[in-house]
Amino acid sequence: MMKSGIKVFAPATVANVACGFDILGFALDKPGDEIIVRFSDTPNLRITRITGLKGMKLPYEVEKNTAGFAAQRLLDHLGESNRGIEMEIHKKMPFGSGLGSSAASAVAGVMAVNELLRRPLTKRELLPFAVLGEQVADNAYHADNVAPSLLGGMIFIRDNPTLDVHRIPVPNGLYAAVVYPHIKILTKDARSVLSDQVTLKQSITQSGNLGGLIIGLTTANLDLISRSLQDIIIEPQRAKLIHGFYEVKEAALQAGAMGCSISGAGPSIFTLCANSLIAENVGKAMQLVFNKNKIHNQLFISRINQEGAELC
Amino acid sequence: MMKSGIKVFAPATVANVACGFDILGFALDKPGDEIIVRFSDTPNLRITRITGLKGMKLPYEVEKNTAGFAAQRLLDHLGESNRGIEMEIHKKMPFGSGLGSSAASAVAGVMAVNELLRRPLTKRELLPFAVLGEQVADNAYHADNVAPSLLGGMIFIRDNPTLDVHRIPVPNGLYAAVVYPHIKILTKDARSVLSDQVTLKQSITQSGNLGGLIIGLTTANLDLISRSLQDIIIEPQRAKLIHGFYEVKEAALQAGAMGCSISGAGPSIFTLCANSLIAENVGKAMQLVFNKNKIHNQLFISRINQEGAELC
Repeated sequence: MMKSGIKVFAPATVANVACGFDILGFALDKPGDEIIVRFSDTPNLRITRITGLKGMKLPYEVEKNTAGFAAQRLLDHLGESNRGIEMEIHKKMPFGSGLGSSAASAVAGVMAVNELLRRPLTKRELLPFAVLGEQVADNAYHADNVAPSLLGGMIFIRDNPTLDVHRIPVPNGLYAAVVYPHIKILTKDARSVLSDQVTLKQSITQSGNLGGLIIGLTTANLDLISRSLQDIIIEPQRAKLIHGFYEVKEAALQAGAMGCSISGAGPSIFTLCANSLIAENVGKAMQLVFNKNKIHNQLFISRINQEGAELC
Repeated sequence: MMKSGIKVFAPATVANVACGFDILGFALDKPGDEIIVRFSDTPNLRITRITGLKGMKLPYEVEKNTAGFAAQRLLDHLGESNRGIEMEIHKKMPFGSGLGSSAASAVAGVMAVNELLRRPLTKRELLPFAVLGEQVADNAYHADNVAPSLLGGMIFIRDNPTLDVHRIPVPNGLYAAVVYPHIKILTKDARSVLSDQVTLKQSITQSGNLGGLIIGLTTANLDLISRSLQDIIIEPQRAKLIHGFYEVKEAALQAGAMGCSISGAGPSIFTLCANSLIAENVGKAMQLVFNKNKIHNQLFISRINQEGAELC
């Protein structure tokens, strides 16, 4: 029985990125989740330990756990359904933060098992299994957190059902400052506030910004990125769920952020900044507002992580 | 009195390009409009001749004519409001075809006057004047025909009010086959059939295709371009205005087109094709359907014109 095991890290991610609701996301360097797997003489995949829960509950039952479900689907695909594997899940990032916590666990789960089995599949080939895992948590088959957590970088998803994913190059030096305020928003609540209708005009404006963002990132046109980092559809509907959102955003832009909006379903707020120094200033300015409003919060400063999930 | 004059050609354009309603367009090599200007001893800009009208009427009054209005705004800007200039407009492309006829005239008008005055402005600086000219014809301030006719290439407009325009590179060898069926659709009718609401889901799908098209064009990924050339919002609403549209589209795709949709407000139907030979085959297949339905039609085969308006 091999006890050393394989340890994998999968990073947090910022989905939507202002104008790319459900189809754009990028990876951070940290925080993220760690998963350790090792072979066991007892048959089947078993989750033996979960740490970092901070009062939250996560199921040990494989079929109900995002990491377990994703890994089991991979094992099924490989004809190894009953392979004896022990899995430890070490949550090292906040739940319900809008930073892709369940996606990171699902990604780390499939990546760890794939590495343990000596890498039968490429990272890209692991994507559908990880997406299935995240679906256990939020019932939606979309890759805007999973794909960047697995593959790294700024990832555009043309079409979620077929996982038509593409990497968009980002300018050198681009940094994200992300603040997670300790406010509770469930993804399903964040979805329920959204109207299922938009005006044609809104749709055109948002598309213009999405196209502008892709072109700006590709050509390293920082002014164009800044003009394009706007969300006129989702942000106005969700901002009310985050106390002080507009004040925080204003502080971020005043401090030099290229743009500022809600990360995923919130409550985290992300910014993109031209360099790490600006990102530090922006992050502190955002924290000041939350501190003033007596809302506990955490700051994460990160470049756009180009590696995604990795062995550690 | 100098009689030789300056002659300028401005090309036809395909706007919308399936998934880029109001914010994407490209230029063809032909057809297009020609405008000749020369200095005159009589003060003010005067339109002295309009040819190629084929029974249509265009106003000789400068303030009511797209080319005249655009040119006059440029003259006003240059402090030359009363400069004596004669303008001849030679319409060499069909009206109401969905190929940017009024945009081509507006572009040729400002470009010709700018050349006559020894080019005080760059092409990019001429853009707002040409857009004002087209606005005379269709009451909308948007650049999806004017910008590619003036500047050439595949042009993305992040934001029409500020004319935030960007050139998207296109793969070598990319060709368009465009068929203009002699069916009458007025732009205002084509607008009035459109719902001013879309579902959030439709908006996301269309945005995914727009982003996919931009990435596909930029990286010369022909399969991605092909998957992205879909219009799930506008085309289903306008197709009914073009007798036989779906049959023509099917014929185009069967013949190897990468995608097929309505050019601008129609009735012209455009395709993008991987090379000129495929474009010829596709064009003939589309014409066969219209011929069978006894609808007169014209075929234009063209690369993506990268030069835009030019002296000739």
